Amino acid sequence: MRIVVLAGGVGGSRFLLGLRHAVPQAEITVVGNTADDITLFGLRICPDLDTIMYTLGGGIDEQQGWGRAGETFTLREEFAAYGVEPQWFSLGDRDLATHVVRTQMLGAGFPLSQVTEALCARWQPGVRLLPMTDDRVETHIVIASDGDQRRALHFQEWWVRLHAEPEALDIVPVGADEAKPGAGVLEAIDAADLVLLPPSNPVVSIGTILAVPGIREALVETMAPVVGLSPIIGGAPVRGMADKTLAAIGVPATADEVALYYGADLLDGWLVDTRDAASVPTVEAAGIRCREIPLLMTSVSSTAEMALAALGLAAEVER
Amino acid sequence: MRIVVLAGGVGGSRFLLGLRHAVPQAEITVVGNTADDITLFGLRICPDLDTIMYTLGGGIDEQQGWGRAGETFTLREEFAAYGVEPQWFSLGDRDLATHVVRTQMLGAGFPLSQVTEALCARWQPGVRLLPMTDDRVETHIVIASDGDQRRALHFQEWWVRLHAEPEALDIVPVGADEAKPGAGVLEAIDAADLVLLPPSNPVVSIGTILAVPGIREALVETMAPVVGLSPIIGGAPVRGMADKTLAAIGVPATADEVALYYGADLLDGWLVDTRDAASVPTVEAAGIRCREIPLLMTSVSSTAEMALAALGLAAEVER
Repeated sequence: MRIVVLAGGVGGSRFLLGLRHAVPQAEITVVGNTADDITLFGLRICPDLDTIMYTLGGGIDEQQGWGRAGETFTLREEFAAYGVEPQWFSLGDRDLATHVVRTQMLGAGFPLSQVTEALCARWQPGVRLLPMTDDRVETHIVIASDGDQRRALHFQEWWVRLHAEPEALDIVPVGADEAKPGAGVLEAIDAADLVLLPPSNPVVSIGTILAVPGIREALVETMAPVVGLSPIIGGAPVRGMADKTLAAIGVPATADEVALYYGADLLDGWLVDTRDAASVPTVEAAGIRCREIPLLMTSVSSTAEMALAALGLAAEVER
Repeated sequence: MRIVVLAGGVGGSRFLLGLRHAVPQAEITVVGNTADDITLFGLRICPDLDTIMYTLGGGIDEQQGWGRAGETFTLREEFAAYGVEPQWFSLGDRDLATHVVRTQMLGAGFPLSQVTEALCARWQPGVRLLPMTDDRVETHIVIASDGDQRRALHFQEWWVRLHAEPEALDIVPVGADEAKPGAGVLEAIDAADLVLLPPSNPVVSIGTILAVPGIREALVETMAPVVGLSPIIGGAPVRGMADKTLAAIGVPATADEVALYYGADLLDGWLVDTRDAASVPTVEAAGIRCREIPLLMTSVSSTAEMALAALGLAAEVER
């Protein structure tokens, strides 16, 4: 079975751990979000790709869900001593080595897809990890500035430095309109038996992947079932600040509204948490098959259960 | 008093410590060798400039004379895990932070002279540190290859990886012929009351500085006395492998031959070690004032004595 998974960082990675556990024989291709990427200290950082790679490769800091286990922070200390900015983005030494290797390869002319493949040769994540695009796309957040002014800042600055506190007036995946799907992405969707949308952020993770021209179209057109899992549980995001990003694009943070935002042309099936059972009729009325199950990814085995439920729903909706 | 010092790495730095101690009120400008520089992992590394900066700024590993005190090696471990080369060049985490900051600034378009000034703002070396050039110059070593073939390799590969074992058939400062003196270098020589050549490697440190068109000429023309200290003591280099680099360019490794290699047009005074007293007449016969004193830089105070002897000799030869 060939499964394509669109994934952000922490949520996507945890879901993938469960999926890999549930169907160890499946060929899993992950289309990773790269719109969180940022260049700091001259180094190209791909937080979502790395979180997936480290999580599935056994190198993640399991407590926080991102960054490396056994991390040290000598370079951060040195950067501060040199007074170079930014100091709000925590870069560990082990993680930094990944960025140095990546930046060197990108500088030598390799596309991000080949760089990611080279990095994965070490981590052996057990999935094929494809960047959503080899082009540069960076999510910017529009916030209010003095008076009637607005200004845009990089997603990471809003998320990490400002803790998503200034209201996001708009969210713009800069560069997405001119980006092409990454090497292998359309081919993987075309060959897939099943496409899954894990409970990643629907706006700045899955949403930016879908913003790359050609990817959403391929998902609409594929004969394979497309099944998603709600990132909103009991009317609130389980982790992260998905509600704030949904508000920015005018989507209420409910399990049904996220499904409608993805669209009935895209989604064939949708899983909501048992606490959101009231959402089921709305989603079904839109023409998306919907089921309620416990959606908390509290362990690999509970997540594997979720993955199996998604596979079950996919079998039901087989086009 | 304005003193210009041409300097390589470890030897030059130790001499500068003594000089600064001997004449704390002097305005010291250091013209640093950049021909040892190398780009590894996409990062621009300037070993001699950094050794000077760390030594005079109190950040050096005093035991080995280069690298940072309290160094850690997390990134080296990670690079090895990724299988990226080279692994023969030991890069510590603290040192690496310097290279990351430098590379970012160079990438943003700043010349090496401004980057060096920015890095020195942290280290406060108490001297003005100027790269010999803002252009790229890299020393390559020609060695024998299969049969009658020759091949050239970067100085660092020959020195660090091969321990200078393959015989150096020639030494070529690649790029030197097209390089221009670094920002401020000619002005500093022009304004100097005294120019000193510490006991650095006469070929790959001082020699490459002199290979930048305009620098040697400025030293020949300056009215200020130019005084050097022999890096050869008792017919052997004190440290490093200066004899091997001298052999490559056909200069015998003796205290007098190094003086003659620099030339009587350049040098006004030359200090040799007491063990090389026999060299004095030859040097003097060439028209270079020569004195014998103990030349071992065993401590800051003994090095300060050497620096004072150089100042004394300079006063004797005042043009």
